[in-house]
Amino acid sequence: MIAGKQSIKFDNNVYIKAGATVAGTKEKKGPLGCCFDVVSQDDLFGGESWEEAESRIQSLAFEKLLEKTGMKPEDIRYIYAGDLLGQLIATSFGLKTYDVPLFGLYGACSTMGESLSLAAMCVNAGFADNVAAIASSHFASAEKQFRFPLLYGNQRPMSSTWTVTGAGAYLVSNSPVITKCDGDVCRIVDNGYANVIISGITTGKIVDYGVKDSMNMGACMAPAAADLIEANYKDFEVTKGYYDMIITGDLGYTGKEILLTLLKEKGIDISDIYTDCGIEVFDKNEQDTQSGGSGCGCSAIVLDTLVLDKLRKRELKRVLFVPTGALLSQVSFNEGKSIPGIAHGVVLEAV
Amino acid sequence: MIAGKQSIKFDNNVYIKAGATVAGTKEKKGPLGCCFDVVSQDDLFGGESWEEAESRIQSLAFEKLLEKTGMKPEDIRYIYAGDLLGQLIATSFGLKTYDVPLFGLYGACSTMGESLSLAAMCVNAGFADNVAAIASSHFASAEKQFRFPLLYGNQRPMSSTWTVTGAGAYLVSNSPVITKCDGDVCRIVDNGYANVIISGITTGKIVDYGVKDSMNMGACMAPAAADLIEANYKDFEVTKGYYDMIITGDLGYTGKEILLTLLKEKGIDISDIYTDCGIEVFDKNEQDTQSGGSGCGCSAIVLDTLVLDKLRKRELKRVLFVPTGALLSQVSFNEGKSIPGIAHGVVLEAV
Repeated sequence: MIAGKQSIKFDNNVYIKAGATVAGTKEKKGPLGCCFDVVSQDDLFGGESWEEAESRIQSLAFEKLLEKTGMKPEDIRYIYAGDLLGQLIATSFGLKTYDVPLFGLYGACSTMGESLSLAAMCVNAGFADNVAAIASSHFASAEKQFRFPLLYGNQRPMSSTWTVTGAGAYLVSNSPVITKCDGDVCRIVDNGYANVIISGITTGKIVDYGVKDSMNMGACMAPAAADLIEANYKDFEVTKGYYDMIITGDLGYTGKEILLTLLKEKGIDISDIYTDCGIEVFDKNEQDTQSGGSGCGCSAIVLDTLVLDKLRKRELKRVLFVPTGALLSQVSFNEGKSIPGIAHGVVLEAV
Repeated sequence: MIAGKQSIKFDNNVYIKAGATVAGTKEKKGPLGCCFDVVSQDDLFGGESWEEAESRIQSLAFEKLLEKTGMKPEDIRYIYAGDLLGQLIATSFGLKTYDVPLFGLYGACSTMGESLSLAAMCVNAGFADNVAAIASSHFASAEKQFRFPLLYGNQRPMSSTWTVTGAGAYLVSNSPVITKCDGDVCRIVDNGYANVIISGITTGKIVDYGVKDSMNMGACMAPAAADLIEANYKDFEVTKGYYDMIITGDLGYTGKEILLTLLKEKGIDISDIYTDCGIEVFDKNEQDTQSGGSGCGCSAIVLDTLVLDKLRKRELKRVLFVPTGALLSQVSFNEGKSIPGIAHGVVLEAV
């Protein structure tokens, strides 16, 4: 069960039963725009502030997850959730009405990996049948939090990434199939697709190469991603062909190059199976997002619409999903601190 | 194993093997001042900012825990840790050098309960032999974060609480005894005291009564504490005499009265066994802290020096430890939002 120094292998009983995604208008225009469950025409999502908008995004994602799985809030034993805002206000205000026991998490943009990891541990241990893992971010609330007011209209260097407006909610469960009940009659919803399991996790350490540039988050996080992938390779004794895809959270084009270089120095070549959620979520040529997408919401919405989609369709068999986080605040940045990184790895398989 | 709607009972194999506490100068002068492991004469703890001071406090607590247990960082499989600062910078910068897989948590001042809960789940499930649960707060970094600059010298109403400068680190383990090794020779350290187990947990929901006063956190959190204690009583079928002590995190004198009233309305009378870490940590008459102490660090340092101390000495047999958190940020407060509360319950027993 324990695998190596940083990993756990599960007994093949932890399913991602369903995912639900909510995205903003810019994400809708990107390559995965077809496939988000909820898209608003207004990035305020009917709220009065960007923070309220992000709370609504999280709430919408959870509501959609319940709808897709035919469940009620009381069927969910725990929620593992987080966001980028100080004191997790998107999570607290977005989920406060549901009356579900909550574990609040902060892993910066790696939060989707952290929440899926803890959710999988919980379900595998038999502490719950069904739990939800949720993460969100919002471009405008993040810019306000970490950088400049939008109206200031600052220039964005080529290494900067664009925080995704979006949330993903996932039902982590010990049963593979969705049943829908009408009165006393329940039936299995067979959609003809493969089931997706979380077969293992590798939990990240903080890695700090001393980078201080908050406009180059890819460089801050790439060392943590390299460390995580190396640990995963050791713990799972990975050889060539083990994974069909390794996808990081939000390194973008800049971070991608750094990651591939760092891994090559460790003797690991993943270039033929590697991509990044930040690269996949926006169109490089059309959408002017410089190095790509970022934010907890980036990996959270790409997971369902790209990774799980391909696993369900059996186009992929085994994927290492590695959300990546940059551990800064406006205070630590203004005090001249470095920006350490962290990454959490989740092994996904089609069964 | 699953108990009722919100709780888990463990199989008596989750020990709090040791605790380590670090406290500030004001806490040193309080009723528990005798017993903290590390106290600095300088609340900056040698740092250059209040945030750096808090990072050092967390680091010192973890170092002390390792020293007390004779362990090295590599013996700790996971750290579950959090603090009050935006984006958890006290945790990230305090723990970044240890190379231990980290789950970052945010439960406001309930974080010590959240981290012990997740740590206990992890150990009970067999995912680790030894993990650390850590939480911290600092008066000056918290005032700067949530209220006014210290130099502003604002008045403090009687309902306000004083954020504790301190951190607690706890070794949650599947083995009860500490062994110390000298070369190849290892010996059991028998200190003659009882062992303390985490026999169960009750995980809290967000509860919002609409209170908006950030100078009255007790009122914000008391409804969540009442909800948690009621849930614990149901899930564990608690009858009179089951607990020797119920101790909340940081409701203070104001929150205490509200909690006892709310629980009486639910038909639960805990007045003869109830106290609060915020009440225990400072001297009401001498220390001018108005309603008492607060912050993640409050329950984190009272747990070892009061609760575990009495359990180890068999002066108590079974305790319900309920750290309480107020889910606000300066942004949510300034935007006129309410302050929802959350509480996490940990059942501790002397064995």
